[in-house]
Amino acid sequence: MYSPKIKKYQKKFEYTYAFGSFPVIDLLQKHPEVVYKVLLKNNTDDSEGISEIKSLCDEKSIPYEYADRLIDKIAVKENTYVVGVFKKYESELESESNHLLLVNPSNMGNVGTIIRTMLGFNFKNLAIIKPSVDIFDPMVVRSTMGALFNINFEMFESIEEYIKKYPNQNLYPFMLDGAKDIKEVEFKEPFTIIHGNESKGLDSKYKGIGQSVYIPHSDSIDSLNLSVATSISLWEVSKK
Amino acid sequence: MYSPKIKKYQKKFEYTYAFGSFPVIDLLQKHPEVVYKVLLKNNTDDSEGISEIKSLCDEKSIPYEYADRLIDKIAVKENTYVVGVFKKYESELESESNHLLLVNPSNMGNVGTIIRTMLGFNFKNLAIIKPSVDIFDPMVVRSTMGALFNINFEMFESIEEYIKKYPNQNLYPFMLDGAKDIKEVEFKEPFTIIHGNESKGLDSKYKGIGQSVYIPHSDSIDSLNLSVATSISLWEVSKK
Repeated sequence: MYSPKIKKYQKKFEYTYAFGSFPVIDLLQKHPEVVYKVLLKNNTDDSEGISEIKSLCDEKSIPYEYADRLIDKIAVKENTYVVGVFKKYESELESESNHLLLVNPSNMGNVGTIIRTMLGFNFKNLAIIKPSVDIFDPMVVRSTMGALFNINFEMFESIEEYIKKYPNQNLYPFMLDGAKDIKEVEFKEPFTIIHGNESKGLDSKYKGIGQSVYIPHSDSIDSLNLSVATSISLWEVSKK
Repeated sequence: MYSPKIKKYQKKFEYTYAFGSFPVIDLLQKHPEVVYKVLLKNNTDDSEGISEIKSLCDEKSIPYEYADRLIDKIAVKENTYVVGVFKKYESELESESNHLLLVNPSNMGNVGTIIRTMLGFNFKNLAIIKPSVDIFDPMVVRSTMGALFNINFEMFESIEEYIKKYPNQNLYPFMLDGAKDIKEVEFKEPFTIIHGNESKGLDSKYKGIGQSVYIPHSDSIDSLNLSVATSISLWEVSKK
């Protein structure tokens, strides 16, 4: 099997890293087919879930090796004991399900937080319109705390390409000047919640796409933070 | 007037900095009494709100000076044209109002995001139990985008000290194992929404304080991000 060179992550790599036992366990359980290998540190105490990782590796025929120095070289955080090295992948979205669509998200922390919130509210399908933050940057992978491996995600060049592929979705773009208050909207399944870029939001063409929605807030702030607005929208629709 | 030495921010300083025109305008409007001076860059084009800043300074007798190099030395972000230098302050909370109380928050980005969300949902009183992230770190000030200057905040050594000072608040601690689903709670004013630390949450003693609440989410995640959980709670109570 091809064995990728282990060095500090760069966006152009075809592989990336998951740091920490629990994300690596999620990775091994959900996507064993993309895992090249697992790196471990010597003398790691077993509270870290190491024995579960080793037995998952054995079960799925994935090699693991001890590599303390390599781990320190590539880790984004101190006290990293386990690294999963895996090939970047995409997974088709479920077409009869509800989706979240992010247009040009640019902040890694926001995307990580949003993916975790999605899973918390049983949203398992994420579409992203490029350009976008690198969803496979180890910082994003880490900030999702394993949630990334439990959702489907697919990248698109444009909203038109997304609509062409998933024509049956009812679209709800969230805009500061959206036509309807979120509290008054009836979200018809299967639906797609759409949020724009952190600083620019969605451009006005989205007004013509589906039912535009706003989250009411005071005039004292320009807008809610993207992860906050997205989380509130997922919370509201998951309540209904 | 005492003139603080302008150098890279340290937590021990009795003064701090606000970067960017709009936060500085909020600072000058809401808390002129704590502003030592304003630093400006030469050749800044006026779309940046510079003339409003100068006239606010004149009106409130606050000096401003051009100091390009000093600004570059202390700025946390490129392209900073305006810096407000101000004394750290606290402001008493309104006792007949609803409060947000954060216990030992440790992440600057979360606190900044939460303060912005508070203002968005008309929450203007923030209590913090120490130890806490430094709310006056320029990174926090910046991430609130001026919202910090529009709310009251007060620090406490313990929850007991807070309760002693504001005995009429109805307390709602948010806990993973809270007794009631947020959707079923009737929040009696004046109330205090309480959220714990990012990794540890609230310890079990909070179960005995007021009405404990949880935000339902799937078992696939351990918990929601603190800024997400706090924002959802502020959103829910502001809707009622």
